[in-house]
This record gives sequence, C-alpha cells and structure tokens, in this order.
Amino acid sequence: MDRLAKCPANYVPLTPLTFIKRASMVYSNRTSVICDGVRFNWRQTYDRCCRLAYSLRSLNIVKNDVVSVLAPNVPALYEMHFAVPMAGAVLNAMNTRLDAKNIATILIHSEAKIFFVDYEYVPIASEALRLLVARLERTSNSTEYAMPLVIVIDDINKPTGVRLGKLEYEQLIRHGNPRYPGEDLEDEWDAIALNYTSGTTSDPKGVVYSHRGAFLSTMSLIQGWEMGTEPVYLWSLPMFHCNGWTFTWGVAARGGTNVCIRNTTAGNMYKSISNHKVTHMCCAPVVFNILLEAKPHERREITTTVNILTGGAPPPSALLEKMEDLGFHIMHAYGLTEATGPALVCEWQSKWNHLPRDQQARLKARQGVSILTLADVDVKNKDTMESVPHDGTTMGEIVLRGSSIMKGYLKDENETAKAFQKGWFFTGDVGVIHPDGYLEIKDRSKDVIISGGENISSVELESVLFKHPAVLEAAVVAMPHPRWGESPCAFVVLKNTVSTSESKIMAYCQKHMPKFMVPKKVEFVKELPKTGTGKVLKVELRKLAKTLRISENTNNKRSEKEVDQTRYHQDEDHHQEKVMAMSRL
Amino acid sequence: MDRLAKCPANYVPLTPLTFIKRASMVYSNRTSVICDGVRFNWRQTYDRCCRLAYSLRSLNIVKNDVVSVLAPNVPALYEMHFAVPMAGAVLNAMNTRLDAKNIATILIHSEAKIFFVDYEYVPIASEALRLLVARLERTSNSTEYAMPLVIVIDDINKPTGVRLGKLEYEQLIRHGNPRYPGEDLEDEWDAIALNYTSGTTSDPKGVVYSHRGAFLSTMSLIQGWEMGTEPVYLWSLPMFHCNGWTFTWGVAARGGTNVCIRNTTAGNMYKSISNHKVTHMCCAPVVFNILLEAKPHERREITTTVNILTGGAPPPSALLEKMEDLGFHIMHAYGLTEATGPALVCEWQSKWNHLPRDQQARLKARQGVSILTLADVDVKNKDTMESVPHDGTTMGEIVLRGSSIMKGYLKDENETAKAFQKGWFFTGDVGVIHPDGYLEIKDRSKDVIISGGENISSVELESVLFKHPAVLEAAVVAMPHPRWGESPCAFVVLKNTVSTSESKIMAYCQKHMPKFMVPKKVEFVKELPKTGTGKVLKVELRKLAKTLRISENTNNKRSEKEVDQTRYHQDEDHHQEKVMAMSRL
Repeated sequence: MDRLAKCPANYVPLTPLTFIKRASMVYSNRTSVICDGVRFNWRQTYDRCCRLAYSLRSLNIVKNDVVSVLAPNVPALYEMHFAVPMAGAVLNAMNTRLDAKNIATILIHSEAKIFFVDYEYVPIASEALRLLVARLERTSNSTEYAMPLVIVIDDINKPTGVRLGKLEYEQLIRHGNPRYPGEDLEDEWDAIALNYTSGTTSDPKGVVYSHRGAFLSTMSLIQGWEMGTEPVYLWSLPMFHCNGWTFTWGVAARGGTNVCIRNTTAGNMYKSISNHKVTHMCCAPVVFNILLEAKPHERREITTTVNILTGGAPPPSALLEKMEDLGFHIMHAYGLTEATGPALVCEWQSKWNHLPRDQQARLKARQGVSILTLADVDVKNKDTMESVPHDGTTMGEIVLRGSSIMKGYLKDENETAKAFQKGWFFTGDVGVIHPDGYLEIKDRSKDVIISGGENISSVELESVLFKHPAVLEAAVVAMPHPRWGESPCAFVVLKNTVSTSESKIMAYCQKHMPKFMVPKKVEFVKELPKTGTGKVLKVELRKLAKTLRISENTNNKRSEKEVDQTRYHQDEDHHQEKVMAMSRL
Repeated sequence: MDRLAKCPANYVPLTPLTFIKRASMVYSNRTSVICDGVRFNWRQTYDRCCRLAYSLRSLNIVKNDVVSVLAPNVPALYEMHFAVPMAGAVLNAMNTRLDAKNIATILIHSEAKIFFVDYEYVPIASEALRLLVARLERTSNSTEYAMPLVIVIDDINKPTGVRLGKLEYEQLIRHGNPRYPGEDLEDEWDAIALNYTSGTTSDPKGVVYSHRGAFLSTMSLIQGWEMGTEPVYLWSLPMFHCNGWTFTWGVAARGGTNVCIRNTTAGNMYKSISNHKVTHMCCAPVVFNILLEAKPHERREITTTVNILTGGAPPPSALLEKMEDLGFHIMHAYGLTEATGPALVCEWQSKWNHLPRDQQARLKARQGVSILTLADVDVKNKDTMESVPHDGTTMGEIVLRGSSIMKGYLKDENETAKAFQKGWFFTGDVGVIHPDGYLEIKDRSKDVIISGGENISSVELESVLFKHPAVLEAAVVAMPHPRWGESPCAFVVLKNTVSTSESKIMAYCQKHMPKFMVPKKVEFVKELPKTGTGKVLKVELRKLAKTLRISENTNNKRSEKEVDQTRYHQDEDHHQEKVMAMSRL
C-alpha cells in the first residue's frame, strides 16, 4: 500500500484556483460578473485574471509577495481573488472602513509590494501613504520596506480619470497575456490570502490562509449552505470580510453570477435582487435593518426566494421573522477570520417546520453544527480541557480543529502560539452544546459577566432585552459591584415611537430571567458605539459602565430623554480610531 | 508566510472518518441505518464502528492490513466502511457476483487478513477457501500468505445460525470498546480502500484509494448531486461499487438515513421508497428496467421526488423519460473505479427546462462537467497530447488529473505506470467536448471501430439502434472487413412484441446515420453477454463477430427466430468466468 507514490495525476495541490479554470471551461458562456452596465462571462473573467496575473509578474511580483487592495465590491477586487494567487502572491483585501493610520500600519506590517486603490478611496489612501512615508523616514532602517507601487482602480462603468501614481487597473488587464496559465502551485500549504483582524480590543493581526484551507472552506460552505446550480450571488457582504466568507471563490466553483454593488444601500440591494433575480447573499444581521427600513421607492417585491447566510451576531428572532415575511430565507452561521469564515452553520431540520415561529427563530439563532472540513468542534473547560456535557447549559470555550483554520498570524509568534494550544484553536467565544448537538454561543469569553460566582452571558441577557417592545438595540457589559464583584449593566437604544423607563425595563427583566441576571443598571443611549462593521464595541461600554452608578431596583424614573448623550459623544472619536476589521464574522 | 508551521489545530489529515464522528455528535438521534426491522441512530452506528474497530485491533489487525468482505448491502458492510479504516486497515468490499476462483484470487492478491462473509455467501466462500488452500499448498512458499481469519455476518434481523469458522460479526461488536477512538491517521495519503476491477477484458486489478481521495470525492459528490439535508438514501447500488460511489461515507457526512436492502428487486425498492420516503438512490440504467417492469403488486406510487444518480452506461432517452414520468429525477454521472467513483456529473441547466423532452434526455445522457475535486478533465489526442476543440465532434481520449484519482494498482507497477502517463490518468474512454463545455463519451478506446480510416463510435451507433421501436437492447462491435479493415456489427435483442428483420434495421440505419457508420451485419440474439454488473461484454461479442458473415445491404430476411442462440449459449459459461467487478461505474 505504501509503495504507491504520489504523481502529478493523482496528487494535485488543493486550491480555489481550480474553480476559475474549471468555470472558464464548463461555464464559459454563463454570466460571471455584473456591475451596473458591465457584464462578463466566465471565459472573460478567467481571461482577465490570466492577464492581470501576468502583469503582476511583469511588475516583479513573486511568490509570497503581498498585494494589498482598498476597494469596495467591484469586479477588480473579485478578479484579484484569483489573479493575485495565480501570480504566486498573497491577496490582502483591506477593510474599506479603516482610517489612514491603520492602512499605513497594515501596509508596513504586510510589506505590501503593490497597493491597489479604488478611485473613491484615493483621498484616504493618499493620507495613508503620507503617514507611511513619514514613518519610513523615522525608521532609519530603510532596507526593510520600500514604498508599495500604487495602482488606481478607476470606475469600470464610467471612468473618472482619478489617479494616484501612473498606473490604472485596466492597463494591467490590457497589457497582460490571456494565455498565461499562472504559476505552478508547489504546495497547498502556501499562502493565498492575508486578512487583518483586530477584534474589538487588540492590535491588528494578519491572518494568513493557505490554498488548502481556502479550498476546503469554500467546498464546505457551498455544501453547508446548499448553494445549488446557477446561483446569482449579491455582494452585500464586503469581499474583504474573510474573502467574502469564501464565496469569492465559491461562486466560481458553482459557475454562478456575482452581482457587484459599490454600496450596501437598500435601493442597491432591492434593485439588484429584482433585476438579476438574486438567489443568494451574505450579510450581518445589521443589514436586515437596512432592508426592513427601506423607503417605499427603494423597495421591490421579492418574487423568488433569496437565501441569506448571516453571521457576526446572533440574529434577533423578531428580525428573522420580519425578513422571512418579505421572502428571504435565512441561515445562520458562525465563524471567525481565523477559521476562514463560517465554521458552523445552523442546519435546518424539517421537524422544526411544525414549531411556532418564535421557537423556529430561536432555533435558527443558534450557531449550529460544524462544516464538513472542520475535523472537530468542541466546547471545553479551558482549564481541564474536558468537554462540556450536551445539556445546553454548561458553558465552555469553543475550540476548533481542522485544515480550514488559518496558518497563523503573520510575524506574530506569540499570538499564534496563544491561539493554538493543546492541539486546538481557541476561539475566545463561550458557548454551550444542546442535547441535539447544536452549539450556541453565549458570549465572547471576555464578555462573560461573573456576578457572585455565577456566569452571566451578556448575549443571553441582550436577547431578552431585544424582545421588549420599546427596545431597538441593547448591549450588556459588566460593571463593578461592591457586593457581587461584577454585575450586568445594560445599554439600551429605544425605538423612536415608544417610551419607557429604567425601572420598567428592570421590572420586565425580573419577569423574564433569574434574579441574579437582572441588570443592576439600565442606561439609555442614542446609539451604541460600533466598529465599522457594525459590531458593538463592548470595550467602550465597559469603560462607560465604570463611571455609572448602580440603580438596582430603585424606582428611577429617568426617561430616555435624560440619557447623558454628551459623555458618549465625547468618546466617539476615540472609538473611531479603534474601529478595525472585525475578528468575528 | 513560510514560517507559519502546520500544527494539530490547523492541519488535520483529510479522511471520511471525520464524517461519522461528526454525525455521532450533531446528528446523534437521527436514524442512520434501516434494514428491515433493524434501526440505528448515528450515535449507535458510531458506537458500533468504534467497537468493531477495537475488535479488529484485538484480532491483530494493524495498519495497511486488508480486511475483505463478501456481503450484500447490509448494515455490517456499511459499518465496515468506517470501522476498518478506524483500525488503520484497508477495506476490500468484494463484488458479490464473483465466482469462487476470483474470490480466491483476490484473497491471495490482497493478502487479506480477515474475510467477512455474509451468511448467504457461505457456500461460495467455502468453495473459494478450498481453492485457496489448494493454491497455497501448491505454492511451497507458505510464508507469503496465511489463510485469512473467516468471520460470518449472520442476518441481523433473523439470525440463522449459519457459520463458517467460529466467529460471528455481532460478537465483535459486543466485545468491542465503544470508547475506542480509532487509530490516529498520520497521513491522508494512507490507504482506506481496495476495490478490484477488471473492466471487461483484463485480469483483476486492485485499485487503492487514499483517505484524502475518498474524503475529497465524497465532498464533491454531495455537492455535485446537491444532496441536501436529511437525505434518505436507498442502497440500490452495491456498496462494493467504488464504495457505493462514495455515498457510504457521504450519507454520514449529511447525517442521512441509509436504507439497506439485500436484493435490488422491484418490490424491495418500491416498498423502501414508499415506507421510508426515499429521497436519493444510485444505480446503473439497467435498474431502470427493473423499476419500469415491476409487476402491479410490487409497485407503489412515488409521492415525493426520488433523485437518482445513474452511471455505468449512458441512459437511453426513452428510459429517462419513462422514469421521470414515474416521479424519479435523474442525474447522469460518469466515472471509474480508478477515479473513486463519479468524476463527471451532467449538471442540469435551467434553460434546458424549455426544450422538448427528447432533447432534454439527449442533453442529460451526456457525461457532463467535472466534479469540484478534480483538478482537470480534458479530452486529448493521445499521440500529440493536444486538447480537442470544443466542437462536439472531434474525438480524443478522456484524461483526468486530481487528488480523487486512485493511488494506483496494488502490486502492479506496470499497470499503474500505464494508467498514469504525462501527468494524467488515462481513462481508456473516447469522448468529445461540446461547445458548452459538457463532455460526452463516444466509446471505450478499444471499442472504437476504425472503418476505412474513419472512427466510428459504437456507443453512437447503439444509441441510434435504441431508438428503433423493435429494439430492446443493442451492442455494436468491430468485425473484420476485407475492404474497410473493420466494419460495425450490431447485436440486437428485440422486444417480444415486435418483429423486424436485418434488412429493415439496416434500412433504418441508413436513414439515420452516415453511410460509413451503417452496420455491415445485424445479428439478433436472445440476450447480450454481460458482466455481473450489467455491462455488455464486448470482448465476447467481438469473438462472435469474427465468426459471422458480412451481410451489407443484402435483403436478408432472417427473422429474430432464426438467430443462432446455440452459439451464444455455448459461450455463456466462459463469460461467467470472466465476469468481474466492473471498471467503469
């Protein structure tokens, strides 16, 4: 058995690049990319990728070089998902909500050789490059990193002429060789992408994906979401989020159509859905609100089922129901940048069809079951490394193992070693396993509130608050408590039309949760501090909570009007600086 | 990038064993296996696999040992697909239609350490063991191979007490350890299965699969067939056929239900479909006839869509239409044992829904597009290695490349080297690529008829004959021709109710194909010589054709009654000896 050797016919490195070559052969005439008036088929998209890859080589890009891009969901960014690795290089798709300082930091850290900039982002990119020059001047050691070559991506529909440096993306396409087959991939462990993440607290970390991991994760997600033939995929999720949760590659694997939109506005989304008969889209639950709150002139009727894969935060049941009423079919996924996107999907069971809708929504809000390319998912006591019982209540840290987990953090041995311990990747998320084997996240491990020795899941508490008719948004963090050590403090954004009071909310909580979980303080705010991707910045709320006084069960009548908005707004600038690519999906 | 090392958290060998462990966690209470009165859920099936794997180790099975099984589609054979590799061993599921001599040959060639025998197969297994003893005695070198340990698999529903040796399957389950986690898989390139194939001409060859190949092929086929959640899979395809075209592992991956039947009778199939609401089944087109010709008392109404994946031979359009009328939804696949089952699937395109049904059937009969884990499929001129144009007419040999191709042939360096040439696996099948990128097989390369320098596809000619209202079955082979070198000779089985003549068939052919393709001889036979798996033994027909006289356009009035059945029947015993596991699906 052991004497049968690997050969080029039976051992080919796994890579998502297979998908585009195959698409050019078997789906050649099908529409690959639509962006306003521009349309390509798969033969053309492959042709453009070959040309771009060839041009990158001509620009001295070699294996393991980083190519950074700052662009919204335009065809160029899609093409780079194939062309950059075809040239042997590593794609770094940047979060477009980064500030100039963070962009500069990432360019230096990744040692990007080329920096593609969408024309709309030329101002912030220029600022970032100025900061970069200044920093390079400060650090005398100039051999370490040279300035990247800057290439603008002009509007593909209506070229604007905006430039930063001499080159424009379409020049690279024009001068490329459509018959360039790409570099041979020697090892599927080679890097394909670099995605920066910071979560909400720490410094940016560069998550490196291998070709193998990207291939496997893509395969799993097509399968886990049951994306059938001829999908029409709307790019409502930024491609810079874990490479569009792998669907940049996945749509090519299915020979589907990518509908690119520059901005995730209600108008753009409804128009695309209606014009192109969109079948699939991914987004964070925050996008549900955009769709639900669309103005009448922006709306279109949804005539066919639109499948949504959502993640980043558990979707509140009320939102789920409203979305499904509109004709959207929602699947919930859980993942992290480090897991190459979704690692769990909440696979629907037909027996749940007969349950009341609120119960269905509750089941759907769970994170679910592991995708097929993960070797193992478990919830463990971090100290003893014992698995929690499948009882739906015992909490532990969610740990993952498998070939779709990142290679590690670029140039960060410490953080890499911290993430990989005892044979597992530690997610930093706290969850339970239900008797049916479905996993549910209770909190980020750092967001768990420990009150008098009891673990309180802030997520669980928030989900109760969400059901209160006056509550639009809610976030719960720990605040210091003289008796219990910590106690929950709820920050609540109220709906415009409904009024309530702190004591009413507290009374409501007392009715719907164990006493020890009831917030000892409810603070009304106009909005919650969030990252650019819509994640609540709990680190900011915790700072705020430290400055508040415990209310307990006082009959505090302070209404939402009395909320101290000033304090919150003072902190806002500071938040903005911390806004980075999210770590959770 | 290169400094980020593999570790147990981010690099786990790919293996289908992941699927059963996962199923036991996330689908624990769902029904895994049904066999008449016996039912297991996934926790139980995993428990039984762990026990069996433990018992195999107790019986001194170690890494790379071969465990052979001769059994129909019973739960034991299903469980062995996981338990045997969990013990580090290699599963050899034997074709139950083999004769004693072939069984003995395989036991010796594979050096099987354990030989599991279903109670129904005890007589033939005993005979095989007698032959084995005799052969071992003849070859003095007794150190090379010792007799395998024989273990009977009794009927799980109604134990019969039939034994061959001391052990019975359920004893191994009982005495096993349900907490045995299985051996650590060190390398995904390690062997998982050994499937013997002979095609229709040559000696048996032992095709070895790796864990990696089995995993990837399983992933691709779930995806290519779009097998959704909670499938109910009917085992109409023998599990010994490329491990059930990988669905032994695939059903576990989907947490589906395996409906096991001992015999593929119309009654068994209809009953299972109706009782268990079967959603998926695989079979050769020959099974369509069984379903279509069911007696009224065997039939059940098909109330939900039953998806069929078919392969082995292109399904005739007429059969396809009739099957779809009954409520079956058919997808056509093409593969080989060497490709770990299906390598191409005929992915349906929605625009074809508007075509006339015969045209739909014609499109569906094509072999289609590559599965996602194949790196490359092409049709090439074997001499120049140039790809054929996508014109639907230029023929070439179908070649494959990818990680789901076999490791090679066990102990057969010559055949392995012949199969893997110039970086490709040569299928020995001749095909074309259509302008839409879909591949269609025209023939086995050895079945192509070369007449006056023209290549004639026997398959193409057969498909024309099939459309003749009097024709039930047809097979075309080359016969020697004094002028053209070779010319086509058609063997035809007529329907009982219709009569025709050789000249009428020839006249029909002249109307429906180019003149050079028209058979120079039409021979009526009562049945076609076939392998145990329903493949026409063309090698036998070629022998027969050599003895026939060319008719050309003579007005030969000999009716089907005059067919020389004797000659055919004389050869039958000889055929039976050659019947082996098929090479094509």
